[in-house]
Amino acid sequence: MNNIAVFPGSFDPFTTGHESIVKRALPLFDKIIIAIGFNTNKKDFFPLVVRENWIKKVFVTYENVEVVSFEGLTIDFCKKTGAKYLLRGLRTAMDFEYERSIAQMNKYMSSGIESVFLLTTPELTPVNSTIVRDIIRHGGDASQFLPKEINLEDYKI
Amino acid sequence: MNNIAVFPGSFDPFTTGHESIVKRALPLFDKIIIAIGFNTNKKDFFPLVVRENWIKKVFVTYENVEVVSFEGLTIDFCKKTGAKYLLRGLRTAMDFEYERSIAQMNKYMSSGIESVFLLTTPELTPVNSTIVRDIIRHGGDASQFLPKEINLEDYKI
Amino acid sequence: MNNIAVFPGSFDPFTTGHESIVKRALPLFDKIIIAIGFNTNKKDFFPLVVRENWIKKVFVTYENVEVVSFEGLTIDFCKKTGAKYLLRGLRTAMDFEYERSIAQMNKYMSSGIESVFLLTTPELTPVNSTIVRDIIRHGGDASQFLPKEINLEDYKI
Amino acid sequence: MNNIAVFPGSFDPFTTGHESIVKRALPLFDKIIIAIGFNTNKKDFFPLVVRENWIKKVFVTYENVEVVSFEGLTIDFCKKTGAKYLLRGLRTAMDFEYERSIAQMNKYMSSGIESVFLLTTPELTPVNSTIVRDIIRHGGDASQFLPKEINLEDYKI
Amino acid sequence: MNNIAVFPGSFDPFTTGHESIVKRALPLFDKIIIAIGFNTNKKDFFPLVVRENWIKKVFVTYENVEVVSFEGLTIDFCKKTGAKYLLRGLRTAMDFEYERSIAQMNKYMSSGIESVFLLTTPELTPVNSTIVRDIIRHGGDASQFLPKEINLEDYKI
Amino acid sequence: MNNIAVFPGSFDPFTTGHESIVKRALPLFDKIIIAIGFNTNKKDFFPLVVRENWIKKVFVTYENVEVVSFEGLTIDFCKKTGAKYLLRGLRTAMDFEYERSIAQMNKYMSSGIESVFLLTTPELTPVNSTIVRDIIRHGGDASQFLPKEINLEDYKI
Repeated sequence: MNNIAVFPGSFDPFTTGHESIVKRALPLFDKIIIAIGFNTNKKDFFPLVVRENWIKKVFVTYENVEVVSFEGLTIDFCKKTGAKYLLRGLRTAMDFEYERSIAQMNKYMSSGIESVFLLTTPELTPVNSTIVRDIIRHGGDASQFLPKEINLEDYKI
Repeated sequence: MNNIAVFPGSFDPFTTGHESIVKRALPLFDKIIIAIGFNTNKKDFFPLVVRENWIKKVFVTYENVEVVSFEGLTIDFCKKTGAKYLLRGLRTAMDFEYERSIAQMNKYMSSGIESVFLLTTPELTPVNSTIVRDIIRHGGDASQFLPKEINLEDYKI
Repeated sequence: MNNIAVFPGSFDPFTTGHESIVKRALPLFDKIIIAIGFNTNKKDFFPLVVRENWIKKVFVTYENVEVVSFEGLTIDFCKKTGAKYLLRGLRTAMDFEYERSIAQMNKYMSSGIESVFLLTTPELTPVNSTIVRDIIRHGGDASQFLPKEINLEDYKI
Repeated sequence: MNNIAVFPGSFDPFTTGHESIVKRALPLFDKIIIAIGFNTNKKDFFPLVVRENWIKKVFVTYENVEVVSFEGLTIDFCKKTGAKYLLRGLRTAMDFEYERSIAQMNKYMSSGIESVFLLTTPELTPVNSTIVRDIIRHGGDASQFLPKEINLEDYKI
Repeated sequence: MNNIAVFPGSFDPFTTGHESIVKRALPLFDKIIIAIGFNTNKKDFFPLVVRENWIKKVFVTYENVEVVSFEGLTIDFCKKTGAKYLLRGLRTAMDFEYERSIAQMNKYMSSGIESVFLLTTPELTPVNSTIVRDIIRHGGDASQFLPKEINLEDYKI
Repeated sequence: MNNIAVFPGSFDPFTTGHESIVKRALPLFDKIIIAIGFNTNKKDFFPLVVRENWIKKVFVTYENVEVVSFEGLTIDFCKKTGAKYLLRGLRTAMDFEYERSIAQMNKYMSSGIESVFLLTTPELTPVNSTIVRDIIRHGGDASQFLPKEINLEDYKI
């Protein structure tokens, strides 16, 4: 078990975009840990436990995917779990610049951890959690942007 | 009355940039509905009714411009009004990426609605509502960034 | 016949991306002129006449689409044909910046001509003529990036 | 004393990136005023007085650097101090677009004030105050991103 | 004579955008050297001597502006002339990324030379030499994009 | 031997930026093939054989790095060598947009091949082959941008 990657995010909610990145990255790693970062001071849209259960449902048949939540610095979580890679998806140039700052700061703080990026597929490029939340908040049907295992009916906001 | 466009925004406040987009887009459409999106949970700078009255003043002599406010998803508002187009102005590359995500998500949810973009003119490119609010908040004179029909004296924050 | 749009480009070759923009923009205009700009000093990949015939095939059943070639400034061509609009597709932020410069310079030179932008659909965003030419040059199969009416067998480079 | 530059920011906290810009810009100006903008309605991470003392420590031996705090519009502060230049550092393309809007709006409001930009050095490009705050908030060691004169132990959040 | 800046470029041709940058930067420096880089292997649009004479005409009354041509590395030219600054104008985010690479490579090679950036004014942002050449090549009237001292009639391509 | 990655490029010349990407990516793959794409119609700066020998020298002690040259489509080369991954380095937002188009087109043509991206380190971000060639062309010293095994004296242009 050498190549462990952490896929960190708030996943509020986990979208088809996230799902596609994890599934396509799997052959590269021995294990991918989907790590839901939480912050006791920040207001969530969906409760942490709901997000965690949803993601677990999506990967229930995947033995080398683990779903956990964590508080604190992502690089500290990587060290604790023995992960040497941070996995991230890239959608747009704006995404890229933000991810680059984070990844390079992480590397300054812990040079042993490498960030690895995959591209979202073209048809999933516009999908992002902020817009998905906005659709749900206004009573729209966001189901096409969520993995089929995630049923919003399970949780009524 | 076939080609109706919705020009959605929070317009807090409506600037010379917005004014220029609507006036230049008018010959393309039979009617443009300036749709002020509001959100009961979000704090506004100018009250909705003030913003609505200001915009109505700007277009008082334009028969094919309508000013309304709405809550909910923009595409639902389009369907209700029979609009087939969403009109948006583009200022910068950052604007573009944000608008692209929104427009493509909208199209996924309602394939009949097309987003149409016009460019701001060069001299209006730096004008944006966030900076205008900041100027007003600090007691600066923002009048040159507002249509001449909008008099900030009408409303004292 | 008031709202005529010119859709200018070198279309070397015309892709599914171009096709999608023209078809989606049609309801906005009375006529769209697909204008193949040529430059006697520039080396083409496909001959002008081949490109022109291909595009005509794509729109053979569309009465309000015209396909012509022109040399010179795009705005001069617009004036000659009475077009008041330039139609362009936007794919990426880099595209946007380039198109903005061209559009704003055009407007400075001829204030009566407005540039109107539509977005490529997400799945067509990566498609561009430069990469398509590269695929063809190396003997790859680029047919999925071309309208079904365009058969590369018709022209052997 | 002709060429005075204001280097405005919230500096929450002041990083090695800020330090590098000021030190490299010094030969260009007779005086640089590091101006900490504060806003009574906005929540700070570090108190204003702590930030001010930290920056003063960094430049204690620099006669032509002044550290002050101000409330209100940056251009009003420039006028009051006789500064004709606004100094800013540029890190990324996203930074650039934001800075351009601010600088051009400032110039519209006060044409006598020119914004001057220096680039961050490559190794400091990822450093930004938002990420630094995040590291500190989670108990990480951010000291490598702060000037050596700034000791976080001096202030315990 | 301490603060000398080099403003390098091919200036093929020198536009109102270039003119604005030099004139606005003048109070910052003791002297600005407009340095026309040439490359014996590259094909120019306007001959070097024509470009040089045009720029000299624009700044004929400016004692602290010098116009010269040079071949070789820009930083070598700076060292030879004792310039400690490279002056550049920024128009777009794409410009920025290109300029950043050049400036940071220059600094790696000669750490004593600092690049200083000014923004183009909003109305001059779309103006660039490539598009200006294209207009001239096609017989269009580009005079509004050139300093009033530059008369294209002086040189017939 | 399951996870083979192709690192394609023209490497004209191979820089410290390229070197860093390959070395950092090695633990992720069983083998990395550095694939020098050549094009009989395109003019190179350094001859193919020189570039190939230089890169071989850099990785002479690395058993799981192979250096080869190829003509044709990158995805065809991947298929021939059994590679399932394309490795690429990302420097800037402009890079990103270009790489995204290429990667997504590649995936359309051969869905089994995944592009994997690593970031250049901050200090290597400005390094690119085009500028390096420019330095060499003008007689500058580019050695700091090249792996220490590459000695330009070996080849005199």
